[in-house]
Amino acid sequence: MNGPSLALRQRSLGDPSADFPLFPPLTRGCPKTSTAELAYPLEVVYDYAKVDRGLFAQHPGPDLARWSPLLPPLDAPTLGEGGTPLVEFGEVHIKDESRNPTWSHKDRLNRVAVSAAVACGAPGVVVASSGNHGASAAAYAARAGLPAIVLTSAASPPAAQAFVRAYGAKVVSVPVEARWPLLREVVERLGYHPVSNQTVTHTGHPFGAEGYKTIAYELFLQLGEVPAAVFTPTGYAELLYGVWKGFTELRLLGLTEKAPRMFSCETAAGGPHAKALAAGVPATVVDLGPTDAYGLAGSAGGYRGVVAVRDSGGEAMLLTDEEMRRAQHDLARQGLWQELSGAAGLAGYRRLRRDFDGPVVCVATSSGFKDAGLGGGRHPVIENPTLDDLIR
Amino acid sequence: MNGPSLALRQRSLGDPSADFPLFPPLTRGCPKTSTAELAYPLEVVYDYAKVDRGLFAQHPGPDLARWSPLLPPLDAPTLGEGGTPLVEFGEVHIKDESRNPTWSHKDRLNRVAVSAAVACGAPGVVVASSGNHGASAAAYAARAGLPAIVLTSAASPPAAQAFVRAYGAKVVSVPVEARWPLLREVVERLGYHPVSNQTVTHTGHPFGAEGYKTIAYELFLQLGEVPAAVFTPTGYAELLYGVWKGFTELRLLGLTEKAPRMFSCETAAGGPHAKALAAGVPATVVDLGPTDAYGLAGSAGGYRGVVAVRDSGGEAMLLTDEEMRRAQHDLARQGLWQELSGAAGLAGYRRLRRDFDGPVVCVATSSGFKDAGLGGGRHPVIENPTLDDLIR
Repeated sequence: MNGPSLALRQRSLGDPSADFPLFPPLTRGCPKTSTAELAYPLEVVYDYAKVDRGLFAQHPGPDLARWSPLLPPLDAPTLGEGGTPLVEFGEVHIKDESRNPTWSHKDRLNRVAVSAAVACGAPGVVVASSGNHGASAAAYAARAGLPAIVLTSAASPPAAQAFVRAYGAKVVSVPVEARWPLLREVVERLGYHPVSNQTVTHTGHPFGAEGYKTIAYELFLQLGEVPAAVFTPTGYAELLYGVWKGFTELRLLGLTEKAPRMFSCETAAGGPHAKALAAGVPATVVDLGPTDAYGLAGSAGGYRGVVAVRDSGGEAMLLTDEEMRRAQHDLARQGLWQELSGAAGLAGYRRLRRDFDGPVVCVATSSGFKDAGLGGGRHPVIENPTLDDLIR
Repeated sequence: MNGPSLALRQRSLGDPSADFPLFPPLTRGCPKTSTAELAYPLEVVYDYAKVDRGLFAQHPGPDLARWSPLLPPLDAPTLGEGGTPLVEFGEVHIKDESRNPTWSHKDRLNRVAVSAAVACGAPGVVVASSGNHGASAAAYAARAGLPAIVLTSAASPPAAQAFVRAYGAKVVSVPVEARWPLLREVVERLGYHPVSNQTVTHTGHPFGAEGYKTIAYELFLQLGEVPAAVFTPTGYAELLYGVWKGFTELRLLGLTEKAPRMFSCETAAGGPHAKALAAGVPATVVDLGPTDAYGLAGSAGGYRGVVAVRDSGGEAMLLTDEEMRRAQHDLARQGLWQELSGAAGLAGYRRLRRDFDGPVVCVATSSGFKDAGLGGGRHPVIENPTLDDLIR
């Protein structure tokens, strides 16, 4: 059942007739359809006719290898990613991705992207990220025995810095404008495999979104049906698109006729996919305002997000920090402590106030430990405490 | 299969002929066998003859309710605790308990202990803890709709303070010596249910260790057999004993004839179980030296730890911070970032250097985000970075 990968080739999202061999992964977007202003990403095509439907009779536990036929080759070892619980929260279901090996959804992407680095024989992995993505890439590189270089910005919180450094990567804080040229130099001169975007509009790693597909597979098994709507925190929209692609595959395989509406929950400080959809263009680059939801603060949008929202009949929403903070607060008051960005899915659902004809899932992406300013408050010791100090 | 609880009554570990009704939970130890110097804990007895063996044909996923017949009644809702992955690390298996809802093993205990509070109709939950236990109790109380009071000490790291406070509990920092009298007052005057120890040697909540049993059930299914040895980080030894009890139940149910040796991995700064075993006494209270492994720094040992080590033919070990730090480092270099205390199991295995006739499991209890001093290091921005800055 969990046999070899049935991945056949890469295909351009810009022109489905443009396809390319599976390797090497085209980490700079589609070379045929991209222009100087707009880069089109790629996806992976599989030999769907050979998929054993018994794959979807298994339990949705950890280790993406259980979905190996529908993923690119998994040459990097597992850390037990995926298989995260679905927790009830009022009338919605929370897919708690803080339960991954490095406590965010990024582990699904990095199992697949670092596998590509291994498969290519790359001497290392390079990533530009100050948070979850950098730490996750570092963890999977370490697990695979590859050195990693992580380019961070000084703005990332101290705990996040310690997190990324724990896995033994070479972590270097550089000015934001130096990150992308340096990343490119590491790729070109050292031959390191990039697991970050390198294009003018976002394309990222062509295999990355494939890892996120497994969320759709798990939801299908956990709910016993396809949800009516899925709300995801959205930065570059790899998660949003990946989940959407997973559901389209379930339909393609004849396992269901339904597909959910996909809702892109972006920060109002940026929100390139909401703006691209409003403008009717495939992707935009926006100016970034201030936000504490640093995990969603990307200026470059990508075509994947537009595809997922448009093809699913969903929407993109711009959420304020205050809306995310309220969602974060309410999740914690039910025992689910998410990072601010991680609560954007629930914030989006609440903003929309729409009834759906079926289950609604909000993906919660990451643990509350990742937020900036954590532990800044001082809480003095009460020297001679009485019961009154505890109940007032 | 996952039917009602088959729990029958409480039984004293000090005298197996001393038994008591299941409710109320005897949160101050066995009233018959305890003395002013030594408190004996209780365990829960089940109607094992009625257990459907099909319980052990299921998948070891999240939510302890899947083991409901062999647990006290689960009246508090789940956060998706348990079902944690088993990750290979060289010749041992790491049971990664950082993958629980509040990212530590404590969630297994608190699902069960907070359920007791609900079942008793208590108006709230009270706990004395500066770290994982306090946060987990607060999360489960919040989920169950009960107020919680958490008595912390000022010594806990700022991130851990933020963690406990996120769940909406009333968190009060008090001097260490004030914690236990205050806890008692909250129990007696407010009727809050205590999920912390209240006795001279450790007894804790009589249902707490039952939650940890589920680790043994999961290991049995994940490995397809009983391991030869289990190493657990040990503070009060509820985890060590709980895992041991789970394996003895598998034997009682006729599912296996084997049981593992249990190794208690304690901090050399204290180590009350190692000292009780060396002295041949049921439990001791020790002076605490300095250690960064604050999750293991308890002065009061309990009889549970002595029982688990003695009956299993295991050992108790006193580990230095340096040994734990090396284990923590090496786990992170394989993508598993644990808190210092959480790495004690692997440190213990390495100290012992013994060959076992079967699989060895080291329980890793909690995420690296919980350590003190996290993010203290400063990492200045390199203003004009070159490739040399990344590779030297």
